[in-house]
This record gives sequence, structure tokens and C-alpha cells, in this order.
Amino acid sequence: MAVIKRLPRYYRYLCELKENGVSRTSSMELSKKMRVTASQIRQDLNNFGCFGQQGYGYGVDMLINEIKKILGLDRDYNIIIIGAGRLGTALAAYPNFYRRGFNFVALFDIDTEIIGDNVKGVPIIDMNELENFVTNNPVDIAALCLPHENAQEVFERVSALGIKGVWNFSHMDLQTAGEMKVENVHLTDSLMTLSYLLNV
Amino acid sequence: MAVIKRLPRYYRYLCELKENGVSRTSSMELSKKMRVTASQIRQDLNNFGCFGQQGYGYGVDMLINEIKKILGLDRDYNIIIIGAGRLGTALAAYPNFYRRGFNFVALFDIDTEIIGDNVKGVPIIDMNELENFVTNNPVDIAALCLPHENAQEVFERVSALGIKGVWNFSHMDLQTAGEMKVENVHLTDSLMTLSYLLNV
Repeated sequence: MAVIKRLPRYYRYLCELKENGVSRTSSMELSKKMRVTASQIRQDLNNFGCFGQQGYGYGVDMLINEIKKILGLDRDYNIIIIGAGRLGTALAAYPNFYRRGFNFVALFDIDTEIIGDNVKGVPIIDMNELENFVTNNPVDIAALCLPHENAQEVFERVSALGIKGVWNFSHMDLQTAGEMKVENVHLTDSLMTLSYLLNV
Repeated sequence: MAVIKRLPRYYRYLCELKENGVSRTSSMELSKKMRVTASQIRQDLNNFGCFGQQGYGYGVDMLINEIKKILGLDRDYNIIIIGAGRLGTALAAYPNFYRRGFNFVALFDIDTEIIGDNVKGVPIIDMNELENFVTNNPVDIAALCLPHENAQEVFERVSALGIKGVWNFSHMDLQTAGEMKVENVHLTDSLMTLSYLLNV
């Protein structure tokens, strides 16, 4: 899993290199940018069957394509956001996700004042329409941007609809079961890590 | 560092127990809630000098106080947010941070349309006033919620002002130097981890 957590960074760097017209790179060069040792990088890439060539290094396109496959980025994902508050709408409006193939297709909320509006073209839909929407539209991931108290209940609704991926921003660790995959973004935990670092 | 990353979760759970009036707990009980083995929990806590007592377990208050000290949560932090877009204002408006002693004191932006407004009482200030503000108000942490292109430049401005902690939401790994402590929240990397999980 530690390797997997590094792959998105490799991917971002390699995409930057590509945008700058660079067609090949070395573990040494990646190492300098990424602050990971060159031998760690070679080991990580070897793990996934990407071998550099002596005197040539790695082809940037080759690495990008391999990492894309490993991370499942060789396809697009449809994402719904539950909770159209400040955080939910911030996610929907952020162009970088779309560039990577993560497409927000709808926001859901219970607030009748905002239902019917849209955020950069992403419609805000009545939460009561959730089951109806998901039955009629392919959805891969649900992002939970709602209060702590409602997270578990909504998680179970989403799970019952056959959505396999949950991107959880509620500050609660969900009780998962079966095939569900959950990626937690605990912003308070992240701030606590920073306060720790400030005191060592 | 892996232990440190688990501590905020321990802390959250223990605070929940306390709110529910529970005054003591065991590694077994924590293990069930946290999906970490009981022996891992005992080891983590032993590391920091917190020993449970046979037949009694751990005092919840004692653990909370110890973890607070380790994570530097026995004091408050003043945080400024650079970039008052959707994400920056979402952070400023989120009550949980304040509850943990993380106080957002100002947002900074270059958009004259919003300068002078406030988000739940947190003022939006002209970016040109940054140096002036930080000279006259204690600031521990700067949260960077601005576009990729400007992140490094703003990081250096913040660093020159003596702010030691940076909570980085820009999708760029900052080139740090000296005593600066950076905690990155790379939301795109997080989504990529989820897409990986969905494909294994």
C-alpha cells in the first residue's frame, strides 16, 4: 500500500515532464524532484514490471501508461457528491479532477433553496431522487461531504445502490462491509499531523 | 511517522468515548472500533509512555491528555488561509477545526470583489496586506488554497514571514527548506488511490 500511495505522485511528475516535452527520464532525476531515493524509485517501478534501460532510463510515455493502468486511470469515473455545502461544491468546481478522468455528474442535497441550481454545470438534485438517479445513470464513486451524524446512514444507502467506491470527507470512520472501497480524507487528522510536526 | 498518523484517530475515538460518558477503555475495545489489532494499539500507546493496567485498562481522560500533548493539541493555533475561493472558504466555515483549537483568523485573496467580506466572521483581506497582518498578529499555520502556479511563490512569502507550518492544498509538492513543516492534502492523489482500490 505504501508503494500505491507513492504512485499518484510519480504520475503527477511524469505528466509534468510530458507537458514540458521531456520524453525520457532516470530514477536519479525523478529522485531529485520527488525526495525519494533513486533506489526506492527503481524498486517501486520494478515491482510493477517497469524496468529502466542502462544508459537510456525510462520512457516517460511508457511509465505514464503503466502507472495509469495500475491506478485504474485508463478509464473514466462518474462521481456523485452527497452534500452540496461549501466543500461539496468546491470539489464539483475544481477542474483538475475532470482532467484526470474523474467526472462529477451530480450533487445531492436536502436544502430546497439550492436544489435545481448547478455548480459549473453539475446539477444539484433532491436527495430523495438519489435512488432514481443512480438506477438510471452509471455511478462509480460517491463523495460524502455531509455532517458526521448522517454519514453512516447515507453510506448504507449508497452501498445498497451498488456503488462500490466512497470518498469520505465526513470526520467519521465508516463501518464498511463487503466489496465497498473507502478512501478517507480526514482534514482534522491532517491538521493534527501538522501540529505534531510543529512541536518536534 | 506511521504511529503519528494513527494518533489523530485514537484521539477522535477517545473524545467520542468521553462525550458518551465512558471513563475507561481497553486495547481490545479500541481495537474493535479502530480496525487495528489490540497488540498494535498497546504497542503504539506504550511507545508514548501510556501503559494500561491489568484488569482496568486505560483511563480515557489520561489517554486524551497524553495524546493531546504528543500531537501538540494542548495549545491553540492561529491559521490564515491564502486563497478565498470555494475550498478556502469551506475550510474557514467548518466548525470542527475550531473545536480542536485550530482557529482561522483571516483569509487572503487578490479578488477585489470579495476583499472586505467575511466567512462566518473570518475576514477576507487583500493579499497585499499579508506582510502587515502577519507582523501584527500571531500566525502559526498558513493554509494554501490557491492555484498550482502561485503556490511556490506564496510559500516563499509565507516562509519569509516566519510562519513555520504550511497546510498545502495546491496540487504541487513544495520545495521546502529549513524549519518549515508542510502537510500536503493532495485530493487528486486521494482519488487516484480510490480508483486503484476499485480495480484490485
